[in-house]
Amino acid sequence: MDQTALTKLLRPKSLAVVGASATPGKIGYTVIDNLVKNGYKGKIYPINPTATEILGLRVYAEIKDVPGKVDLAVITVPVNLVSQVAEECGKKGIGALSVITSGFSEVGRKDLEDELVSIARQYGMCVLGPNIVGTLSNSDKLNASFAPFLPFPGKATLITQSGALLIAMDAITYTRKVGFDKMISIGNMADVDFADLITWLDTDEDTNCICLYIEGFKDGRKFIEASRKCKKPIIALKAGVSAHGAAAAASHTGSLAGAVKVYGAAFQQAGVVQASDLSNLFDRTLALSLQSPLKGDNLLVITNGGGVGVLATDAGERYGVPLQFAPQDVQEELKKHMPAYGSAKNPVDLTGMAGNDWYYKSVKFAYAHPWVDGLVVLYCETAMTNPVEIGQAIKKAVDETGVKNRPIIVSMTGGTRCDEAMAWLVENGIPAYPAPDQAMNAMAALREYHDIRKDIGGSEEICLPESSKKARAIIAKARADGRSMLTEVEAKKLFGAYKLPVAETNLSTSEEEAVALANKTGYPIVMKIVSPDIIHKSDAGGVKVNIKDEAGVRAAYNAILAGAKAYKADAHIFGVAIQEMAPLGTEVIVGSINDPTFGPTVMFGLGGIFVEVLKDVTFRVAPVTNGQVKQMINEIRSVAILAGARGAAPRDRVALEDLIAKYSCMIYDLRDEISETDANPVLVYEEGKGLKVVDARIILKKQ
Amino acid sequence: MDQTALTKLLRPKSLAVVGASATPGKIGYTVIDNLVKNGYKGKIYPINPTATEILGLRVYAEIKDVPGKVDLAVITVPVNLVSQVAEECGKKGIGALSVITSGFSEVGRKDLEDELVSIARQYGMCVLGPNIVGTLSNSDKLNASFAPFLPFPGKATLITQSGALLIAMDAITYTRKVGFDKMISIGNMADVDFADLITWLDTDEDTNCICLYIEGFKDGRKFIEASRKCKKPIIALKAGVSAHGAAAAASHTGSLAGAVKVYGAAFQQAGVVQASDLSNLFDRTLALSLQSPLKGDNLLVITNGGGVGVLATDAGERYGVPLQFAPQDVQEELKKHMPAYGSAKNPVDLTGMAGNDWYYKSVKFAYAHPWVDGLVVLYCETAMTNPVEIGQAIKKAVDETGVKNRPIIVSMTGGTRCDEAMAWLVENGIPAYPAPDQAMNAMAALREYHDIRKDIGGSEEICLPESSKKARAIIAKARADGRSMLTEVEAKKLFGAYKLPVAETNLSTSEEEAVALANKTGYPIVMKIVSPDIIHKSDAGGVKVNIKDEAGVRAAYNAILAGAKAYKADAHIFGVAIQEMAPLGTEVIVGSINDPTFGPTVMFGLGGIFVEVLKDVTFRVAPVTNGQVKQMINEIRSVAILAGARGAAPRDRVALEDLIAKYSCMIYDLRDEISETDANPVLVYEEGKGLKVVDARIILKKQ
Repeated sequence: MDQTALTKLLRPKSLAVVGASATPGKIGYTVIDNLVKNGYKGKIYPINPTATEILGLRVYAEIKDVPGKVDLAVITVPVNLVSQVAEECGKKGIGALSVITSGFSEVGRKDLEDELVSIARQYGMCVLGPNIVGTLSNSDKLNASFAPFLPFPGKATLITQSGALLIAMDAITYTRKVGFDKMISIGNMADVDFADLITWLDTDEDTNCICLYIEGFKDGRKFIEASRKCKKPIIALKAGVSAHGAAAAASHTGSLAGAVKVYGAAFQQAGVVQASDLSNLFDRTLALSLQSPLKGDNLLVITNGGGVGVLATDAGERYGVPLQFAPQDVQEELKKHMPAYGSAKNPVDLTGMAGNDWYYKSVKFAYAHPWVDGLVVLYCETAMTNPVEIGQAIKKAVDETGVKNRPIIVSMTGGTRCDEAMAWLVENGIPAYPAPDQAMNAMAALREYHDIRKDIGGSEEICLPESSKKARAIIAKARADGRSMLTEVEAKKLFGAYKLPVAETNLSTSEEEAVALANKTGYPIVMKIVSPDIIHKSDAGGVKVNIKDEAGVRAAYNAILAGAKAYKADAHIFGVAIQEMAPLGTEVIVGSINDPTFGPTVMFGLGGIFVEVLKDVTFRVAPVTNGQVKQMINEIRSVAILAGARGAAPRDRVALEDLIAKYSCMIYDLRDEISETDANPVLVYEEGKGLKVVDARIILKKQ
Repeated sequence: MDQTALTKLLRPKSLAVVGASATPGKIGYTVIDNLVKNGYKGKIYPINPTATEILGLRVYAEIKDVPGKVDLAVITVPVNLVSQVAEECGKKGIGALSVITSGFSEVGRKDLEDELVSIARQYGMCVLGPNIVGTLSNSDKLNASFAPFLPFPGKATLITQSGALLIAMDAITYTRKVGFDKMISIGNMADVDFADLITWLDTDEDTNCICLYIEGFKDGRKFIEASRKCKKPIIALKAGVSAHGAAAAASHTGSLAGAVKVYGAAFQQAGVVQASDLSNLFDRTLALSLQSPLKGDNLLVITNGGGVGVLATDAGERYGVPLQFAPQDVQEELKKHMPAYGSAKNPVDLTGMAGNDWYYKSVKFAYAHPWVDGLVVLYCETAMTNPVEIGQAIKKAVDETGVKNRPIIVSMTGGTRCDEAMAWLVENGIPAYPAPDQAMNAMAALREYHDIRKDIGGSEEICLPESSKKARAIIAKARADGRSMLTEVEAKKLFGAYKLPVAETNLSTSEEEAVALANKTGYPIVMKIVSPDIIHKSDAGGVKVNIKDEAGVRAAYNAILAGAKAYKADAHIFGVAIQEMAPLGTEVIVGSINDPTFGPTVMFGLGGIFVEVLKDVTFRVAPVTNGQVKQMINEIRSVAILAGARGAAPRDRVALEDLIAKYSCMIYDLRDEISETDANPVLVYEEGKGLKVVDARIILKKQ
């Protein structure tokens, strides 16, 4: 995306409103009114074939009549006129279109949208929308929308896929005192998408935090790339977590994927902090736009009430920022600013006797102390104190330390006096919340932001020409047979091509060949039916294990074929697989889907009951960095099993990490061919002893 | 607790303030000021040895000087005078003491508290506190506290263990518009406790919902009993969930118990709905105090914005009230009140075009429709509509249906106009919240309240004289030996006395006896060392399984003894247990603790890795009803394993339910003797085939 075009879209020096109206109540009137009312300083050209003046502005009949240069056209004409208008804008040399008009892909008319974009491309214009509310910006006093006012001023910028929510959130910024510079309604994303705007906002001096309301991406990878590169905090609320669904899946992995898990993985890899709901989005945006990341574990809480202190302690545990006891020297100093029955541990309880001075002194000491990575100050309303003065004392103490880049968050639990004090604090750069729980959650966001940026890495360019060549030959053969699922033997060969440690498996097509292969593999062996028509091999008596000699091989070969015939008389049988019998180990599952939004995505979980009953699995968009693989393994609930539960020796995590990384490269490399895969089970052995992929499934993309 | 005394405490017709002061700023002044200012209509007698008049009221030097009858004494004198004052109050025939004074058990002076209560008992007075803010009541215009004003009026009553939080919450009632009739600071609970107040409030006509802030109970069972009997909804926020801890535990079960799980179990059994934090406590109190329970699964959501609709759908899933599609006839009717691009499924999206009339008509239809068990109406602020009018349309529609006892909740997402509309709705009995997430959570509370009351049952009186007699003889023998842990053989005999199906296990003290017992039990058998000094039997080579004949028994007997000697030369060895070898089955664990707050409490979980790694266990205060046992089994995450995972046959749930119920009776029956127990593993077989307790541990209470 051309960033100059985006500058014209978001910071236009001049703009035309095409479809301007002199009739109050019409959107074409409201937009002009909003531009004038909010004090936009650039040139405004209303375009309307019949009117001559709207709100004191000269009206032009057509775009081409406008005398000067025009950066942006805000389009409010009926849907059937939009393409024509776009054409005219292009000819005029306009840089960007903000298309408020609806009636495009949201009602099934994607064709109109494609036409619009194709015209825009032709003239090098970018298109925001269609089907949007418009754009708002405090720094340019620009309200090019039909939302009634500019947001409460601040340095966050909102991008939202719901226009209705933009209007509501705009109003909420005033009641919650969360400041925004810009609000952008992104609509149908026919052209400009989240990634484009994130890249542009990264260099916007008026934005220091990017706040997203997302219903769904078109190109998930583009979002990840743009977010990774962005140096400002990004916070996202993903709505519709139940809609994405995992309808019909041919693999185990496919049935376990869902929007929550896949989007969650993508946000993790993109370095994007998540919000749990709308309130939480505001709370976290406030903290991320006003404070620095929390870089360590030492979070100190100062309070005047045991109750709110306990609630903050509970919340700290809940949100992943548990409190530690303060060191002795910190405790000793703090003890000076409280009565004997106070507590200097953590939370530091100044007691209900605490006035401005105790708050001032303890905050000043604690905020400057090197042990303290972050400070949460709680105030529980008392009859004897004035929260506004307490707030001022906190701010003064913080300022006097001269300390920078250390987060501080306040919570004031009480009535209107507390609200007033918190508004003052926020105005002075200190986030403040009505409940201790919210303050701790906001501090957790600052911690998450710090942690999540550690391991986002860049996605490597994968180039594995040899592996790819072998794999594609196997796939081509299956395609030639008209199959969309590889046989187990083929799937293992394909895995082998990418150097995954598979249990050696070969196809025999006669009893003699079976014996020869078994002798070559070495006993004991496993034998399995290979047939595209028999998916559940065990049900057909198609699996025999622990075969110890030639006689066993012969007996098994014939029994398997007989079983297969009995199970499905017309099954097409390729032969019988001869597989080395892998020793017992801890079962894990590695698999993949080719997500419509994010493309190849790898899954990991513990196998057997853990995956089937507990669905204890985790996803990452492929390929994954080594750091991300470590995270994946650590975030499953049953991870302790790999460390050696119930007296077992620790499992070979190095080999497992290597497998997942290679697996992710494989599915990325073959993303044009492969739809879903499972390596299930993979048996993981003791440290240093590696692992074996024992069964494999690969489903090809439909062609 | 004498309910008449509580009436005198909470609805006094006359009261004395002992320690009244004429000096503004003193608590003894503030209380008088609050009583007068808030318009208390009863008689107020300030008691002070020196003053003659405070705020126009005649002051009495001593209680005995007061001419008339006095229901309540509010005590604010210094701690060292409290007992003397209590004595004087008793002599005067006062019914209740509200002791604001602090300096008792909260600073280690439990002795003073005991003295106070003992005096009160002598005169039949009840004591609230000490160390409290006081009591407030809108219906009696009674502010007998040092909190500055009566709460925003309503019909909830707050009982709080944190006085500081009472003052803050009092102020919050106005900003959040959650109405309370009474607020009661319960302090140190030297006498009056939560249970006493719940019982009294159950008959208080001005209270319809009881809201609790709890740090910890003294008598957990009394709370459960009182709550069970209470016919009004109770909502609790338990703070300090990390403090309770499970420090040093001798059993597996002990190490898994913690405040969250045990209190959570108790609330479940008491029929008490929980809140997750302070904001959530207000949100849920509002809903429970204004609306009926949600009795079915059919929750309909009506919205004017897709965004808030999606967020509500997500929240519904999160909070256990997932949305179902509305039936065809409902959809067809609703389709009439929206444009073609709206949706009548669920959420019903009237679109941003929805004005008062569409809201009115769709709400009126939906609220009256028999399919609808509950209704959530969302409004996302638009420039074209007025939220106050929308609110009025909703209320009008609801009223006109004449439908009662069907919950309705509104959410209005937007700015000050929405706040105004929501305040109006709340005033008119419809809970309203600024975010769809909060509305859905509040509706979930109404659902939880309905569900939680289904299976609270009464606790049966357990009387098992025969079992008890046998068990106590086993315990007495161990006590006589100076042991506080039973041997495995003893523990199994004790379980057997309560008819639990244990694997038959007998003690042999010689090789010959071992052989005789083995022959009697039948092969194969298991043999285990029995020694109070060897807890981890396997480590000492003290377990031999699958012994198939006499020769094996002899060999094992000698090997076990030799192993034990090698492991610990001076170990006291009782002999070798001869146990039937139970067939393999699904491992579960049943166990118990004797919780300091709730007494005997039973635990259930799946065994092995599930309990060790995932800590997937659940608790209930014993004894448990059959319904509660079913709940316990259903609420573990890995419950699907009992239904037969990976092709296994379903396990015998009936036998398992029976075991847990009997187990809970056993530990309740022996609560004076037993501290912790484990039945681990218990092997559960296929349906109809029962189960076996294979290993047992019982730790006695310290004496």
